[in-house]
Amino acid sequence: MKKYLYPDRSQWNTLLERPVMQQGQVESLVRPVMEAVKAEGDEALFRYTKQFDGVQLDTLEVSEEELKEAEELVSDKLKQAIEIAKQNIYKFHAAQQGSVEVIETMPGVRCWRKSIGIEKVGLYIPGGTAPLFSTVLMLGVPAHIAGCKELVLCTPPNKEGKVHPAILYAAKIAGIKRIFKVGGAQAIAAMTFGTESVPNVYKLFGPGNQYVTAAKQLATREGVAIDMPAGPSEVLVWADNTADPAFVASDLLSQAEHGVDSQVILVSTSETFVTEVENALAVQLAELPRKSIAEEALKNSRSIVLRSESEALELVNAYAAEHLIIALENASEMAERIWNAGSVFIGNYTPESAGDYASGTNHTLPTYGYARSYSGVSLDSFVRKVTFQQIDESGLELLGPSIEEMAEAEELYAHKNAVSIRLAKLRK
Amino acid sequence: MKKYLYPDRSQWNTLLERPVMQQGQVESLVRPVMEAVKAEGDEALFRYTKQFDGVQLDTLEVSEEELKEAEELVSDKLKQAIEIAKQNIYKFHAAQQGSVEVIETMPGVRCWRKSIGIEKVGLYIPGGTAPLFSTVLMLGVPAHIAGCKELVLCTPPNKEGKVHPAILYAAKIAGIKRIFKVGGAQAIAAMTFGTESVPNVYKLFGPGNQYVTAAKQLATREGVAIDMPAGPSEVLVWADNTADPAFVASDLLSQAEHGVDSQVILVSTSETFVTEVENALAVQLAELPRKSIAEEALKNSRSIVLRSESEALELVNAYAAEHLIIALENASEMAERIWNAGSVFIGNYTPESAGDYASGTNHTLPTYGYARSYSGVSLDSFVRKVTFQQIDESGLELLGPSIEEMAEAEELYAHKNAVSIRLAKLRK
Repeated sequence: MKKYLYPDRSQWNTLLERPVMQQGQVESLVRPVMEAVKAEGDEALFRYTKQFDGVQLDTLEVSEEELKEAEELVSDKLKQAIEIAKQNIYKFHAAQQGSVEVIETMPGVRCWRKSIGIEKVGLYIPGGTAPLFSTVLMLGVPAHIAGCKELVLCTPPNKEGKVHPAILYAAKIAGIKRIFKVGGAQAIAAMTFGTESVPNVYKLFGPGNQYVTAAKQLATREGVAIDMPAGPSEVLVWADNTADPAFVASDLLSQAEHGVDSQVILVSTSETFVTEVENALAVQLAELPRKSIAEEALKNSRSIVLRSESEALELVNAYAAEHLIIALENASEMAERIWNAGSVFIGNYTPESAGDYASGTNHTLPTYGYARSYSGVSLDSFVRKVTFQQIDESGLELLGPSIEEMAEAEELYAHKNAVSIRLAKLRK
Repeated sequence: MKKYLYPDRSQWNTLLERPVMQQGQVESLVRPVMEAVKAEGDEALFRYTKQFDGVQLDTLEVSEEELKEAEELVSDKLKQAIEIAKQNIYKFHAAQQGSVEVIETMPGVRCWRKSIGIEKVGLYIPGGTAPLFSTVLMLGVPAHIAGCKELVLCTPPNKEGKVHPAILYAAKIAGIKRIFKVGGAQAIAAMTFGTESVPNVYKLFGPGNQYVTAAKQLATREGVAIDMPAGPSEVLVWADNTADPAFVASDLLSQAEHGVDSQVILVSTSETFVTEVENALAVQLAELPRKSIAEEALKNSRSIVLRSESEALELVNAYAAEHLIIALENASEMAERIWNAGSVFIGNYTPESAGDYASGTNHTLPTYGYARSYSGVSLDSFVRKVTFQQIDESGLELLGPSIEEMAEAEELYAHKNAVSIRLAKLRK
């Protein structure tokens, strides 16, 4: 971690820069994969799975037996943990359901909104080093609450053609019925276009490597929506002398172990506190299994010492962190003054990993500064809010002349006539 | 309008096809504009405005005097109509503000969501044949309710270097302070990168021609969010014998006059009713100032006669119309069974133009089938919903072991340690 003492405001932009993402090149690799899956369907999926995952599959869909087998392989302790996480995620997301409220904007003019689940959604769960079954819960549970009719999950198989049992178990718990052993850009292509085995969907969710990310971007050009643009994960910890340096170090490392492109930032008004965190970091890093990844990520990372709380608040909002931990004496008060962040963790006993797994909030969050304009995944992500209106005769008598006036000023006479013709009948 | 009698289900996909949009070619024309504005700032804006709008401007920002002048040019009658529309839009969108509800997912684990306005938003209002001041209200009013701090509006000047007074007046009414005389792709570029005059923004809203649409797509690659993907406007009217054929014809025409690529579809189970609408269409079309546009649009358009209500319901949902008018005897009942639409208009006295202008609902809606996965613009479009959580010691004691179990199963030991190190301190 590089330390910056009392940097001048003119330096902030440079200080808060994210690691650069390479997009263009990856897109040119992914485009032929998309086209092949569109043209050849399952055949292309089998071929790419052999090429990229090193396994020749007979069928793409996970079978009933595989699901049963998985259930036996997951320990009772992990099942319990998954159940608790699911309950909390369910509670938090179910509370996001709004009721339909009819607004009578004028007498006889009634307008309302109704949340309707997206009919077909696709969830992508990466394979690779860590089996991200927690993401299965984070996406599957709200999709279920939203009333999405068809939930499709794609995840790459390992060299034995299997999916990690915890992923299958979490999918079962989340009520996901259709699981396919397809990964990478070919999985995104399959859910975009549909194949003989894999249904097409209207919206794609889930994390992935640069190929998956590029494929999701290309999918948007085919009319498929995506959860949000992706970028490397990040945390900003804003702490003072009342925080525990070892806690803060553990939070920084839990972000740093995600990947070599992760970014972690420590902000404080106390130079001595930053030094204590640095010491704690060294101790904890030495014992970490994913030490080499975390070390690499820490090279992108910064500790920044500022003169005042108000300056720190401004810098924190300028960065717009995906995860923001506030470990200050007046943490709650400062949390009220945050306007740019994905998710905020308040106080010394609220580690990021609580939100990553089990507190109930969603862990699919806007990173890379996208928190300035995007929200994290929530129940909203799985519904459309459709507006309805019903105007009765008296309502149109009242509102109609304004519509006529405006339509005429916009020179849209057929718009005007749709009102005039009705008013004429009423006045007959 | 082409008529299809009792088409077989296998024909539906072809029947419900949208006009094809050409994207690739336009993008290659727009890219250099984006790059020039990024590199040269205002200088490029002046140059393109001369080239595309045929006027050499001295300054880009609309002045106080121009605003005052505009106010004098707008008739009192139009001012009143705009005021009524604004009030209704305000009422409907203000009712979308949720209160913060703290959910205690487990004892000691408190999670909540807070809506925070996007700091800087940009509104694009096209010039051209009709001055779309109604869109200024539809975007400006919710942006204001959301608490967006900086609202920027760009719209092209006419050959005299002026903006239509109704646009300026609506902007004033909506509380938009900064208005720039820049149109087309260069306006989108200006709000994406920022120039000496035009501030950069985090999210872009508003309709536009194919160049504006392509520029908005390119802006997303620069990290700027957009309201939704664009496509030609469309209406589907589902009507039976209880509807008035002249009303239905007027609704079809008010969509058809938008542009030659507009699509209008009539669905009914009554062949005689469809014939009556066709006759009414011919009469009304003859008197329309924008007759040639509407005629062209009607060539893309279809009337479809189906055997049963349930078949019609299915087709209507399959099409996922931007605007759906239901003029059936049991319109309210059928409206309950809609799952794919942008906005639904119920009954004989609810013309689409009510929602286009003044009833209160938003007229920026997902078209081209995007209603399957996107919502129209609402208050939600102008906020981020940031999650917060605060866990106390007892909460972490309760939840911590589940987090540790799941983190270990995902092989993320630093995530686990962030909990373990805290639990260890509590147990000392």
